[in-house]
Amino acid sequence: MNRLTTILLAAVLLEASAVSGAPAGAGSPKPPTMAEVLAASTASDWRPLDPENTLLLDLASGRVVIEMAPFFAPRHVANVKALVREGYFDGLAVVRSQDNYVAQWGDPEAEDAQKRRPIQKAQRTLPAEFTVAVAPGMAFTRLPDVDGYAPEVGFLGGFPAARDPARGRAWLAHCYAMVGAGRENDADSGGGPELYAVTGHAPRHLDRNVTLFGRVVEGIERLSTLPRGTAAMGFYEKAGERAPIRRVRVAADVPAAERPALEVIRTDTATFTALVESRRNRPDEWFKAQARHIELCNVPIPVRPVKK
Amino acid sequence: MNRLTTILLAAVLLEASAVSGAPAGAGSPKPPTMAEVLAASTASDWRPLDPENTLLLDLASGRVVIEMAPFFAPRHVANVKALVREGYFDGLAVVRSQDNYVAQWGDPEAEDAQKRRPIQKAQRTLPAEFTVAVAPGMAFTRLPDVDGYAPEVGFLGGFPAARDPARGRAWLAHCYAMVGAGRENDADSGGGPELYAVTGHAPRHLDRNVTLFGRVVEGIERLSTLPRGTAAMGFYEKAGERAPIRRVRVAADVPAAERPALEVIRTDTATFTALVESRRNRPDEWFKAQARHIELCNVPIPVRPVKK
Repeated sequence: MNRLTTILLAAVLLEASAVSGAPAGAGSPKPPTMAEVLAASTASDWRPLDPENTLLLDLASGRVVIEMAPFFAPRHVANVKALVREGYFDGLAVVRSQDNYVAQWGDPEAEDAQKRRPIQKAQRTLPAEFTVAVAPGMAFTRLPDVDGYAPEVGFLGGFPAARDPARGRAWLAHCYAMVGAGRENDADSGGGPELYAVTGHAPRHLDRNVTLFGRVVEGIERLSTLPRGTAAMGFYEKAGERAPIRRVRVAADVPAAERPALEVIRTDTATFTALVESRRNRPDEWFKAQARHIELCNVPIPVRPVKK
Repeated sequence: MNRLTTILLAAVLLEASAVSGAPAGAGSPKPPTMAEVLAASTASDWRPLDPENTLLLDLASGRVVIEMAPFFAPRHVANVKALVREGYFDGLAVVRSQDNYVAQWGDPEAEDAQKRRPIQKAQRTLPAEFTVAVAPGMAFTRLPDVDGYAPEVGFLGGFPAARDPARGRAWLAHCYAMVGAGRENDADSGGGPELYAVTGHAPRHLDRNVTLFGRVVEGIERLSTLPRGTAAMGFYEKAGERAPIRRVRVAADVPAAERPALEVIRTDTATFTALVESRRNRPDEWFKAQARHIELCNVPIPVRPVKK
């Protein structure tokens, strides 16, 4: 069991024990805490990671596991996999860490057409995939809570997302740990060679401005605790300050025993709805005032080890 | 000039130069960017830190500067200063770093009444100061933007805040870098010996549940990049993992030349309103879709070196 999973489970156990030790109130039953919701979940409330849509980003400090979302950004997911499979990222680095914003990785020489790393079969740029068409039957779990950045917010396929019924479009939301493809001024100047993860307060103004294509499901702390770069926008000033990337692989390309054995909660279930409610209004004794609201990026999307 | 200030200024200069290099559009004038708003600000748009309400938290990695908000939490501010002045925090440690949440500092032995550090003249606990009465003439700069956690949000005295006109109460909001006084289950069990700063996505559900009393105005990255603790709630498991506190002082108690020469933007000015608008809808060429909204905790509250 890795460290992050240990933290998650320890926190869950602690919360559960704290609640079980609290006096049972008379009258109406207390709604369940998140720990209780998770403890009561069944196998069908969880889904394993798909190895073909999972990236393993290995830093000196350890592994970052990214779940990709081909529904939202099919071309970007395919291209990032192509880049990974030609070894594009191996030996490159995290080049930028801006406090309360993002960590970004790719080629430190990206700006120099002579020095930058060549791309063999993948694409350097792709048309933007900022939004997708809302399809009939799409399992969008809408939050009833108001959101200032989008007409509707919720979850689609396990990812935080937004929707505009009037325009028939949906898109991924820039919550903590979401992963996207950096770009220059032109909307179609991204594609995969420069990637970033959100490491601070959700920069939702980036929604529909950059192609998001995944979420860090394990190891985000390896990116969020990197020293902040001291050049503009958090870029590292000196090469030695960067965090080298040992290698990146698609989980399907490593032996099964070496793949992360993780499962993610499904977001289109009664269990998930109960989990959201347990966070919207906290039954825990510690809370004196209830928020009666939950903001999209404050909803946890639990990840746990696959039960053997 | 310290590193964080360098980053801020470098980013501002970069943004300004990028804009000045962009072709001037025909027709209606382009609204100013944040860099342009700041460049056009005057001395009266800024206020210096009050040394009597500024804390200097010295870690091995450097200094964290905290501006306190006596308007919102007068007794907590007075008590934290009393704790600081009796040397309570000196030699204690950051005991907890939970990813995407908070860093907390105080006495590692706080749970043990025998081993914990004695308090001389200050108080160990205080009645909660979760909200304050809305006073007539209070310069609350309200954002027109919807918020799910409070009837009204905006800025008061330079701090992100919320207001409920129906109840006549206002309170500080748990945005990134805000500082509060940890407590146990009882609402009145906090007071100052255990403090925390927000280091992740705004946990607004903590609003009106904990006494906030300040904001980190410099050096938040020294807290946000700390290794995450691996015990429950991000506590460090071993003593050696903690980040020791060298000392904490009230800025008024150090020689004037050693005080941080910083000034913070005023939040009740036309300049600040223009700054908010420059972030609500980004005139920068890079943005293709405008948010037409800004969430309270996404509004920057710039800090800069005092001009000599």
